[in-house]
Amino acid sequence: MTTPVHLLPVGRVESPLTDPSTAPCQGDEGAPQAWLVFDEAYLPALAGVRAGAEVLVLTWLDRARRDVLTVHPRGDVTRAEAGVFATRSPHRPNPVGVHRVRVLEVTGARVRVDALEALDGTPVVDLKPVLDGER
Amino acid sequence: MTTPVHLLPVGRVESPLTDPSTAPCQGDEGAPQAWLVFDEAYLPALAGVRAGAEVLVLTWLDRARRDVLTVHPRGDVTRAEAGVFATRSPHRPNPVGVHRVRVLEVTGARVRVDALEALDGTPVVDLKPVLDGER
Repeated sequence: MTTPVHLLPVGRVESPLTDPSTAPCQGDEGAPQAWLVFDEAYLPALAGVRAGAEVLVLTWLDRARRDVLTVHPRGDVTRAEAGVFATRSPHRPNPVGVHRVRVLEVTGARVRVDALEALDGTPVVDLKPVLDGER
Repeated sequence: MTTPVHLLPVGRVESPLTDPSTAPCQGDEGAPQAWLVFDEAYLPALAGVRAGAEVLVLTWLDRARRDVLTVHPRGDVTRAEAGVFATRSPHRPNPVGVHRVRVLEVTGARVRVDALEALDGTPVVDLKPVLDGER
């Protein structure tokens, strides 16, 4: 159960968010627009990604801690600790961020999205369309 | 952009699905119930995960191909090829599966979910609650 697997970043987030301490916890809490800047090698994989689409962006939250199993939800120490699998804390054994956003623009290997709570420079690992059943 | 990062599986899927060629593409297409069997080391991380909750299960689709950038959607060769980032094909540079399911039962480090389109033995890498904005 412990064989590691290797994620290879396919791009990076370009965002005005640079300070972890002031970043919103979720995209619907005032997160700014951001660019997903894919490596040119992945340009073919973007064919069919269009403005207006709802997508899931998967990121590698590279500034998160991986040795944390319980947290105070939203960092509020007055709230009882919960297991990280019951929260959206970035701190978790595998800090993969799942961000539901809308595509605003696609320019070459650059994809602009409407509200992303990921810090500038965060590695992007995948992009998927939102399915009907997930709306 | 190419520094790999390491995912460490935190558990495995126990499912009657064993044949990739007959597995449903999506959970709403007749996928069976499954157990997520977490390594005991992660038991504290499950605190607060309860029956009835809607969750995202993240898996590592270990039987997927990573060198595929375009596919015929749903394997239908009569449909034009699309970039994998515009599809939910398991074949993609980083084959992380995102499965939206409902928790039916939690027993120790075992979590039973209602409909999972992942094959038996698939590594589980994360579990997250569905947020209000994602409903």
